[in-house]
Amino acid sequence: MAIGKGRIEAFSDGVIAIIITIMVLEMKVPHGDTLASLKPLIPVFLSYVLSFIYVGIYWNNHHHLMQAVRSVNGATLWANLHLLFWLSLIPFVTGWMGENHFTQWPVICYGVVLIMNGIAYNLLARILIRHHGEHSVLAEAYGSDWKGRSSIIIYAVAIGLSWYSAMVAFALYVIVAGMWFIPDKRIENKLSNDNS
Amino acid sequence: MAIGKGRIEAFSDGVIAIIITIMVLEMKVPHGDTLASLKPLIPVFLSYVLSFIYVGIYWNNHHHLMQAVRSVNGATLWANLHLLFWLSLIPFVTGWMGENHFTQWPVICYGVVLIMNGIAYNLLARILIRHHGEHSVLAEAYGSDWKGRSSIIIYAVAIGLSWYSAMVAFALYVIVAGMWFIPDKRIENKLSNDNS
Amino acid sequence: MAIGKGRIEAFSDGVIAIIITIMVLEMKVPHGDTLASLKPLIPVFLSYVLSFIYVGIYWNNHHHLMQAVRSVNGATLWANLHLLFWLSLIPFVTGWMGENHFTQWPVICYGVVLIMNGIAYNLLARILIRHHGEHSVLAEAYGSDWKGRSSIIIYAVAIGLSWYSAMVAFALYVIVAGMWFIPDKRIENKLSNDNS
Amino acid sequence: MAIGKGRIEAFSDGVIAIIITIMVLEMKVPHGDTLASLKPLIPVFLSYVLSFIYVGIYWNNHHHLMQAVRSVNGATLWANLHLLFWLSLIPFVTGWMGENHFTQWPVICYGVVLIMNGIAYNLLARILIRHHGEHSVLAEAYGSDWKGRSSIIIYAVAIGLSWYSAMVAFALYVIVAGMWFIPDKRIENKLSNDNS
Repeated sequence: MAIGKGRIEAFSDGVIAIIITIMVLEMKVPHGDTLASLKPLIPVFLSYVLSFIYVGIYWNNHHHLMQAVRSVNGATLWANLHLLFWLSLIPFVTGWMGENHFTQWPVICYGVVLIMNGIAYNLLARILIRHHGEHSVLAEAYGSDWKGRSSIIIYAVAIGLSWYSAMVAFALYVIVAGMWFIPDKRIENKLSNDNS
Repeated sequence: MAIGKGRIEAFSDGVIAIIITIMVLEMKVPHGDTLASLKPLIPVFLSYVLSFIYVGIYWNNHHHLMQAVRSVNGATLWANLHLLFWLSLIPFVTGWMGENHFTQWPVICYGVVLIMNGIAYNLLARILIRHHGEHSVLAEAYGSDWKGRSSIIIYAVAIGLSWYSAMVAFALYVIVAGMWFIPDKRIENKLSNDNS
Repeated sequence: MAIGKGRIEAFSDGVIAIIITIMVLEMKVPHGDTLASLKPLIPVFLSYVLSFIYVGIYWNNHHHLMQAVRSVNGATLWANLHLLFWLSLIPFVTGWMGENHFTQWPVICYGVVLIMNGIAYNLLARILIRHHGEHSVLAEAYGSDWKGRSSIIIYAVAIGLSWYSAMVAFALYVIVAGMWFIPDKRIENKLSNDNS
Repeated sequence: MAIGKGRIEAFSDGVIAIIITIMVLEMKVPHGDTLASLKPLIPVFLSYVLSFIYVGIYWNNHHHLMQAVRSVNGATLWANLHLLFWLSLIPFVTGWMGENHFTQWPVICYGVVLIMNGIAYNLLARILIRHHGEHSVLAEAYGSDWKGRSSIIIYAVAIGLSWYSAMVAFALYVIVAGMWFIPDKRIENKLSNDNS
């Protein structure tokens, strides 16, 4: 039943590397050669920076999660592809949000994609925990996942507030990114304790 | 004669990761910022979801097939590249089918590419089996490949029915994808039996 | 002095995987949905098939060459990047040749890029042989490289003949590809003899 | 605390491979089929060559740096992503500089991105050294990093001189690239001494 985790890591690395890189293609080279010709690109650039950080967070957390994984099964492969699917939509909503200078509907769609990514990551973690057992290193390290849960709640709040102000919603996305900036110490600590 | 399978896996992972990701580039960022401006993208999105699942299926099955492989030879390298070639045409037919809202010829071409992928995968499996011997774990695990054979037949039926209704053909592609959603238990089970 | 060859392989696999895949992006999705709307894409498709085979040949040969490599040095890294540079120009000349239906200058440029790739591959092999010694497995396996030498000569002849007929030049590129279709048995055989 | 370096290498290889390859997409296939129709692409091509070499230098140095690394921590992952972020902007400034034939502001922006890359690489090296200890192989091998420091100074001088002549600034970028062409012998030598 147990199959190696090497290729799932390699494939995920490949897909995430492409996602994080093709986003930059949304920043179209301007026709003018003055500093002013870069100005319309500022919202696209800010949008790119936020998404780069988000995709970076997912890569970091995926990296930490897979550290504690001993083997994968068929369900894991699909749960992982499901996460990659929602990550693959980030370049699209990033471009749409940047080109429209953070107006309501693009900001809402960005939030919806973030929520779906959060759910997909949580689903992947749960499937891995079920496969490894409730008392595995993975399960203990993953813990109650308060950070994942509260992120999804904040995204939902942000979407609700977007009817009031899309900028407030965007600010909340930035705050959640800041909250995740610190990688998942839980698994890292758990692993180093076990090894010591 | 026997050479390592590591690089063939790494290269295939790279190509499949790119194929599955660049398809999203067909979903062009719309100019408006209303929810309505996303509406024309719905068929492109549905087309993308189906192809994402199909490429995911091929990656999963390729992953399972290579699990049971002990070594590769020159013929395998070309059979694998042949499969990657037909996979590389999926983004093109996906975009064509999505942008034309599932009309006849794009749906037919999509089916032809699916058939060619099915044949290419079957060819790769046969070459690997010939290399490993008819009584190898690989050969026994691969078995009669009724799922692969019936998929090709259903694609052909779908193409035939597209003269009657392109939507029926499209529905058949969705059904085959659902049929493959469950990864190849044959090899997985065979491997776990051998290891126990 | 000796450093691992793992990362040079992984990086080359990544670059070659991207090159072989982004070429398909030159086949722009047509606006019409009839079979006739695919017709203008036929030369682009033929051009893509030829280049897919050429990049596949380089990947196969690179794979075989690196099999016999024990370690790499700084010069190797640059010789490898030099090869990747010329490979990276293949999508450009492929698109140019396909869109112009195999007229003279695009066909010449395609030939020039093929020659530069041939030279770059030969250079990489020579630097690796100098690093491993003239009596290494690598040196004996690589041999006189008559196939590489004659390919370059045929490309040059093709370029010369393009003033007479671009189609003859193109036919010669197809013939060379066919000649390389069989992977480099020399190294494969040498390695299997040594292991037996 | 210590986690494997394998995936950070694989992910970086993926991102750098994509960056170095998508730059070629800025060289749009011309509509004409004469040699003259390639002429407007010459500055874009020169710009591409320079950036290919720069990204190649970063990959080589990253490769050498990671050779001496024993383990990575959370801070390393982010320092590495930070470097990849600035590398990901190279295709954009390359395209802008090439399409505008090396005029002032594009040349300045190119220099700014080079400076940020230099700083990001230096930051990554420092974080790795702090993690491994001041007397580690890595620390001794990295040394005073005079080449990194002087590169950043030369970039800054180039930006200042661009008010006088953008071509002089561009020439300085070429000189720095030439200076780095030789890979980081420091770590390579240090490692080979330790192994002997």
